[in-house]
Amino acid sequence: MTLTVGIIGAGRIGKLHVDNLRVIPQIRIKSVSDVATDHLEPWAKEKQIDVLTTDYHELLNDPEIQAVFICSPTNTHATIIKEAAQAGKHIFCEKPVSFSVAETEEALTVVENAGVKLQVGFNRRFDPNFRKIRTLVKEGEIGTPHILRITSRDPQPPSLAYIKSSGGLFMDMTIHDFDMARYVMGSEVVEVSAYGAVLVDPAIGEAGDIDTAIITLKFANGALGVIDNSRSAAYGYDQRLEIFGDKGAAQVDNNRATTVEVSTNDHVKKEKPLYFFLERYTQAYIEEVTEFASACLGNQEVSCSGFDGLQAERIAKAAQQSLETGAPVQLTQAAATVVN
Amino acid sequence: MTLTVGIIGAGRIGKLHVDNLRVIPQIRIKSVSDVATDHLEPWAKEKQIDVLTTDYHELLNDPEIQAVFICSPTNTHATIIKEAAQAGKHIFCEKPVSFSVAETEEALTVVENAGVKLQVGFNRRFDPNFRKIRTLVKEGEIGTPHILRITSRDPQPPSLAYIKSSGGLFMDMTIHDFDMARYVMGSEVVEVSAYGAVLVDPAIGEAGDIDTAIITLKFANGALGVIDNSRSAAYGYDQRLEIFGDKGAAQVDNNRATTVEVSTNDHVKKEKPLYFFLERYTQAYIEEVTEFASACLGNQEVSCSGFDGLQAERIAKAAQQSLETGAPVQLTQAAATVVN
Amino acid sequence: MTLTVGIIGAGRIGKLHVDNLRVIPQIRIKSVSDVATDHLEPWAKEKQIDVLTTDYHELLNDPEIQAVFICSPTNTHATIIKEAAQAGKHIFCEKPVSFSVAETEEALTVVENAGVKLQVGFNRRFDPNFRKIRTLVKEGEIGTPHILRITSRDPQPPSLAYIKSSGGLFMDMTIHDFDMARYVMGSEVVEVSAYGAVLVDPAIGEAGDIDTAIITLKFANGALGVIDNSRSAAYGYDQRLEIFGDKGAAQVDNNRATTVEVSTNDHVKKEKPLYFFLERYTQAYIEEVTEFASACLGNQEVSCSGFDGLQAERIAKAAQQSLETGAPVQLTQAAATVVN
Amino acid sequence: MTLTVGIIGAGRIGKLHVDNLRVIPQIRIKSVSDVATDHLEPWAKEKQIDVLTTDYHELLNDPEIQAVFICSPTNTHATIIKEAAQAGKHIFCEKPVSFSVAETEEALTVVENAGVKLQVGFNRRFDPNFRKIRTLVKEGEIGTPHILRITSRDPQPPSLAYIKSSGGLFMDMTIHDFDMARYVMGSEVVEVSAYGAVLVDPAIGEAGDIDTAIITLKFANGALGVIDNSRSAAYGYDQRLEIFGDKGAAQVDNNRATTVEVSTNDHVKKEKPLYFFLERYTQAYIEEVTEFASACLGNQEVSCSGFDGLQAERIAKAAQQSLETGAPVQLTQAAATVVN
Repeated sequence: MTLTVGIIGAGRIGKLHVDNLRVIPQIRIKSVSDVATDHLEPWAKEKQIDVLTTDYHELLNDPEIQAVFICSPTNTHATIIKEAAQAGKHIFCEKPVSFSVAETEEALTVVENAGVKLQVGFNRRFDPNFRKIRTLVKEGEIGTPHILRITSRDPQPPSLAYIKSSGGLFMDMTIHDFDMARYVMGSEVVEVSAYGAVLVDPAIGEAGDIDTAIITLKFANGALGVIDNSRSAAYGYDQRLEIFGDKGAAQVDNNRATTVEVSTNDHVKKEKPLYFFLERYTQAYIEEVTEFASACLGNQEVSCSGFDGLQAERIAKAAQQSLETGAPVQLTQAAATVVN
Repeated sequence: MTLTVGIIGAGRIGKLHVDNLRVIPQIRIKSVSDVATDHLEPWAKEKQIDVLTTDYHELLNDPEIQAVFICSPTNTHATIIKEAAQAGKHIFCEKPVSFSVAETEEALTVVENAGVKLQVGFNRRFDPNFRKIRTLVKEGEIGTPHILRITSRDPQPPSLAYIKSSGGLFMDMTIHDFDMARYVMGSEVVEVSAYGAVLVDPAIGEAGDIDTAIITLKFANGALGVIDNSRSAAYGYDQRLEIFGDKGAAQVDNNRATTVEVSTNDHVKKEKPLYFFLERYTQAYIEEVTEFASACLGNQEVSCSGFDGLQAERIAKAAQQSLETGAPVQLTQAAATVVN
Repeated sequence: MTLTVGIIGAGRIGKLHVDNLRVIPQIRIKSVSDVATDHLEPWAKEKQIDVLTTDYHELLNDPEIQAVFICSPTNTHATIIKEAAQAGKHIFCEKPVSFSVAETEEALTVVENAGVKLQVGFNRRFDPNFRKIRTLVKEGEIGTPHILRITSRDPQPPSLAYIKSSGGLFMDMTIHDFDMARYVMGSEVVEVSAYGAVLVDPAIGEAGDIDTAIITLKFANGALGVIDNSRSAAYGYDQRLEIFGDKGAAQVDNNRATTVEVSTNDHVKKEKPLYFFLERYTQAYIEEVTEFASACLGNQEVSCSGFDGLQAERIAKAAQQSLETGAPVQLTQAAATVVN
Repeated sequence: MTLTVGIIGAGRIGKLHVDNLRVIPQIRIKSVSDVATDHLEPWAKEKQIDVLTTDYHELLNDPEIQAVFICSPTNTHATIIKEAAQAGKHIFCEKPVSFSVAETEEALTVVENAGVKLQVGFNRRFDPNFRKIRTLVKEGEIGTPHILRITSRDPQPPSLAYIKSSGGLFMDMTIHDFDMARYVMGSEVVEVSAYGAVLVDPAIGEAGDIDTAIITLKFANGALGVIDNSRSAAYGYDQRLEIFGDKGAAQVDNNRATTVEVSTNDHVKKEKPLYFFLERYTQAYIEEVTEFASACLGNQEVSCSGFDGLQAERIAKAAQQSLETGAPVQLTQAAATVVN
């Protein structure tokens, strides 16, 4: 059984998905669209892609294509999701679904009515470390969760151009941590309080964003959580998490390229964390598309749904509001239950 | 050169100081006072203490005694400090100085006018791990600090009786972390925002206190900080800290009884953290009294002053106010500089 | 540029190479031979292999095939190497090259005269951990090497049938460690002294082999080394190494599936080492065939030559002799220099 | 109940014992002897020692003194042990008991006939890490032991003068490891095979000694063991051990001054091991004299007996013989059982 797919948007992440999809035997990548395609021709040929087009509607209108990967800029996501759903395609969409909760809700309604699958690209859920934590929590290994701590720091800030169109730190970067918080806690966030600062680069502040943040969370189950973010960690990509409950705590440390430790007259030295998300989440990116393919072919639930995308956006919006008002913000969404 | 001292209050911590002071060659413990002394006689004899009295004024009136250790209940601290200062005694006072910022300020004024030394018992400053962190920060090893994270969890809650007279979690337990935050950051806290919950024991909530908390801090230097607390960690006393700056990060892990690691068919296992403060801070308790003795005898500055005690109290009060109002609280103290 | 290859022997390791070779774009696997092929037909079809035969000469006679992978039983290696070399094929041969130093020497002579490449399957050289150690040693990070320690323990013994035809612990298992010793030390072994015991399973002893060993090595550069082996480690595959020199030491620890650490009332627990060689050396197996392909296509030196295979065999033979005589054994080979 | 003791030999180790004994309430140090005492007078006064003499017989003739600590050069140990035993004193003797198995046996016979206690200063038995390992082995946590690995490296070599009178590496340094091997294995060594080299300093070789060694052991219970030694580890005192059995393995790592870990653009760095034995075994030195005092006062068995001293010497002698002959050496002592 084969799933024929099309890729909408062939930037860094689109190309990454192509590479990962190509090693899944059940997948055939038929078409790729991008706003410009001239420079993509050698790449598309090498990757044995049949159709390269500047119009993604060509993919949506192709009856052979069963699923699309939306890897275009965020401001195009909601529209394409709706069109793809109406065309009956299953959808894998990069995060965030949109910059507007209302737009996302509208898109999700269309998806639901169309009866297609929608998976959102929160790749970290598919990392073996965080998966293991989620399993341990579900199995009661740490008892009832009380405190969640997430540290999430990038090795260096993106370009100012990127930052300006990113939707802000919370929508662009912390949104992964908001999703992770819901995922490992298995409970919704009901209140958020955000502290932000511009400590890495004043230009980021001039662009209206922050580069350093601490966000406190209250969960529906009564537990508390905290996320700390920085756009620039000298030692590399810092992705750690700890969940603490009445029977104990479970924590994830960073991954390193090797276990080598060198003892000298100065220090005992080990390797820095893996440099960035491409290195740290190599396996997770493969897993997420593999599971998406399985879900489409086997008609199963996806592990990370449009609703998960919506909830993370709501928290990001609330955090932004808290940052601006200096006060905690309640999340008044319907009492949804995290299922995983 | 010998420092003759008296101990006011012979509870657990008073007795601990006696044991530590007895191995310092420059110290002579002459007198101990407590509200009741009958049960203390065998102990005092074993420890070769000359005078055992129910009236601490006896110590203050003894011209031989040069310094007193105030280890009585917190609500007696301010009064005794003032009396001791007026009697010309150097003072080592357990934390917190008092439950009232105004009372503490008044006591500090008396101390200042009397020209005696006052050291507050923030023992963790004298732990070799945290000392090393402070040194690394001062030496610029991590560059300009951006984020501070402190995890501070007790192995089990104190008695309800204790909790009721403790001044609350922030004044009783987090006050150590507030002091640690100022100490390693080398900058004052200018805003605090507190989240609290009752997750360990409902009886703690009925007593008007919380047992779980996350407190966010803004520092005068622009950095952000977060402290998480629990009254009950299944695996023992959890005392970790990380400070992150533009050149890197430095972190302190828990201490363990041994380095032994056992690999079996199930897991690779190492020892839990040391059980509680007596085990973890054994050396720090010795260091703090040794340094106090040196400061008194050598007429040097103490490493942890009355002002440090006052500032930690101010933060604790602000945290309490934030918890009650649900809003961040600014600290409007005069622009004092942390010096260490 | 494409390298067309054939696989001789489709057991576990032959199939593993097929999977790894299939993801290398420059490789085309044309043919596979095995003593029996009926059961392999579905597999060969799935793997898109054109030719499946019971006669490996068919591969050697196929002018399209440029290189062969010899994955048949050890007692067939030398003969096939000679035939393949005479047929002008490049050769990747599993370890050991043969059970006889003389046979191996003879095969190497034929290879040399034929001017084809021969790489021996010492996969551990391609593990990123051990590679890093080798690099650190070459760069002088630990100074002049003095002591090498290798721990190499399997999670469980192979079948008795396997053991009986394995050539013994030193030739079958320790041979990897002998190669590793030469590789990281960059110097030849000049003396070996072996201690062995039957502690895991008496049946292994009855089969004439040992299951536990400590082997001491003297290197041409004056350094000392020690290898310890067990056929059964309750906690999984144990592959550690330390090299100690006058400026410091570098060590490799085991790899684990995740970095998760769980703290409970009992212990702090982390994951066991990865179970066995397929898990631990996944990446190394890919690297070794990728480098072999590059060496063939680019006409470069292989990283692990027939001479390396020969030297490891010589040490294994000497260790066996030492075990039997109870005395150290000198290695009197020509003063070859390890080059890597 | 008080134990009155005398110290014979006030060099580094004698003075260390004085400091440790002074904090044990049950101990009174009455007298100290040394070959020269003028320079010791201020020290003895500060330590409140009543008698300072150049003649140790004065201590043996003092009826008040119940126990002596023999901290004089090794070549005086056996004679003083015999005299002290005949004088009815309990004896704590530094390692090794003597340089001659025959002399040691003779001294032990006198001790046995006199019915006094004799403890040998194998301080490492009292280290909490190694104690824990011994306990785990006894409790069956790792099952039946198969392999023991000890790494024992000094931070720097002693003076050449010391080396010349040290009895050689095995008698001076490895003797601790031989004792440790017997202690954690709970079984006697029946065969030893030694490899040695001069890699640290040619002057050590010219003095007739070695500075680097690997020693292989066979135990009466069938297990194998290996010790590696160096006189010079750039990163400090290296004291590690691993014992591997059929149910798992237990290992001891080095101790460090703090748990601080610094992550920078270069590496993640932690502290080196504690510098040398005074730092690493601080607590063990206290424990060993505390237990000796308890054994004398409570008439209990000592934890490390004269027999333990004798056995370690026998192994050291056998290792020396193996080094010289290049062949393994059997230990033919009576089938004594290690009891601990």
